[in-house]
Amino acid sequence: MTALTLLDYASVLIFALTGALVASRAQLDIVGFAFMACITAVGGGTVRDVLLDRNPVFWVGNLTYIFIALGAAVFIYFTAHKVESRYRWLLWLDSFALAVAVPAGMAAAMVMLQPGPIIVLMGVATGCLGGLMRDVVCNEVPLVLKQGELYATAALGGALAGLAVMQMTHLTMPVLIACAATTWGLRAGSLLFGWQLPVYKSRPPRQ
Amino acid sequence: MTALTLLDYASVLIFALTGALVASRAQLDIVGFAFMACITAVGGGTVRDVLLDRNPVFWVGNLTYIFIALGAAVFIYFTAHKVESRYRWLLWLDSFALAVAVPAGMAAAMVMLQPGPIIVLMGVATGCLGGLMRDVVCNEVPLVLKQGELYATAALGGALAGLAVMQMTHLTMPVLIACAATTWGLRAGSLLFGWQLPVYKSRPPRQ
Amino acid sequence: MTALTLLDYASVLIFALTGALVASRAQLDIVGFAFMACITAVGGGTVRDVLLDRNPVFWVGNLTYIFIALGAAVFIYFTAHKVESRYRWLLWLDSFALAVAVPAGMAAAMVMLQPGPIIVLMGVATGCLGGLMRDVVCNEVPLVLKQGELYATAALGGALAGLAVMQMTHLTMPVLIACAATTWGLRAGSLLFGWQLPVYKSRPPRQ
Repeated sequence: MTALTLLDYASVLIFALTGALVASRAQLDIVGFAFMACITAVGGGTVRDVLLDRNPVFWVGNLTYIFIALGAAVFIYFTAHKVESRYRWLLWLDSFALAVAVPAGMAAAMVMLQPGPIIVLMGVATGCLGGLMRDVVCNEVPLVLKQGELYATAALGGALAGLAVMQMTHLTMPVLIACAATTWGLRAGSLLFGWQLPVYKSRPPRQ
Repeated sequence: MTALTLLDYASVLIFALTGALVASRAQLDIVGFAFMACITAVGGGTVRDVLLDRNPVFWVGNLTYIFIALGAAVFIYFTAHKVESRYRWLLWLDSFALAVAVPAGMAAAMVMLQPGPIIVLMGVATGCLGGLMRDVVCNEVPLVLKQGELYATAALGGALAGLAVMQMTHLTMPVLIACAATTWGLRAGSLLFGWQLPVYKSRPPRQ
Repeated sequence: MTALTLLDYASVLIFALTGALVASRAQLDIVGFAFMACITAVGGGTVRDVLLDRNPVFWVGNLTYIFIALGAAVFIYFTAHKVESRYRWLLWLDSFALAVAVPAGMAAAMVMLQPGPIIVLMGVATGCLGGLMRDVVCNEVPLVLKQGELYATAALGGALAGLAVMQMTHLTMPVLIACAATTWGLRAGSLLFGWQLPVYKSRPPRQ
């Protein structure tokens, strides 16, 4: 199993858990859990594959991904009531999903020998778009756009860290690890310690 | 004309009617009706074709689909005021659209000799995504996520029924009919008699 | 540089400015500005390229587009507070973006020798979908669906004007200019003078 496949599996599993948690907040039935789990789990990677013209799309060519997402939906359906704050779980699971999806996106572009900036963009897109679809469909405020938190920034920082390591070595593993660690570190720092970039504040126009 | 083409025509026509009805609820002008009719009519099938890498996308290769959608938009623009409850019409038309779009999605995947689970997924995706786009764009609560109704479940049930028939016969027609009938039966039962799966209810966490 | 490339550059630049302006209204950080600028700038053209199966997608094959969008995001981040009404700027910039994106969409389909109606549809889709994604993601009322304004209608009118010129000449330039001028004229007339098509008004059903 390649590093890319492994990252895709992990990303699908964790994003599916977050999709099912959002379904539990919307009080859907078990099929609604599965629907949201699948959209969230494969959304980002599907956009990546369509943009890079990878054929077939990763989950069309390998059904394991879908079964993982369905398993995650069933698991959450029967256990979500046991946790105290589902929103906290959602936030933290989503942070792990982001941290594996960004290197998964980079790896797919690296395998295709894309230039550096495209590798970075595919990492950010794969990381952010599955969760964005989940939140838009369920009409939640998209995590990626929450004011005063690092999210797209964490994805971008991780992808740039991976790119920096790529300049130093031709091995794939260190690149992916640097990317995942930086992404998660930035996102976790934002959740725990309130790390943020300055947000835009409109000031009155000059006289 | 193949069964696939016929199903695509029917699905485009009925989904276009629902898109135009949503446009009438948003009080758009005639071009807005056409815009919403087209997005709703071809949205699900377009995603299906992009995922399966069918070239060209069905409506790019055959303009009849677009003309059908435009005709439906004009028809609704001049007649919607004559019906008493547009929302009721919307719900019922949408149930028929779902019941033809699910087998249309399955048929496209069957023609490409995809494995069973992909056939089921393409049926569900083709059935649900056009309406989902319509509702997200118009900021209505997506029908697919309405609590306590069978929608994605109806699509999934229909696709699984079609798959079951596929195990018994190599003929396409019985598969598509079983799928359409089951999908519509489940959806109609939900609208008429309130059939539903148990929805997730959060309970307080265990002590 | 071909006319198509030039139009794509202009459309990416102006749509990126509108995406960053929406980010400033949502008070995002600089990476949020870049994220929204990129989605808005390349959204419509990406859908066009995926639908027409153009490979690679325009910005994957030429990184300049992304750098233009990033530059626009940085520019707006540091200057948006200087303007008095950001919403007015947003509306007017968006009108120019629409007026270059519609011919950009047409040009791509013309190069591929698509039939007339597909050329028109690609123009409308390229023009409208980037802004639609921007507004759906940020949960603003989509400009394309604003009641009593010409938007999709302006795009359609421009595309039809371009098509009419295409019947008279085999030169590309006059087609694109007619399309851009008509689109912008209709949209500007709607913003300045309130031009509109009659909107649908529900009347009570007949007895």
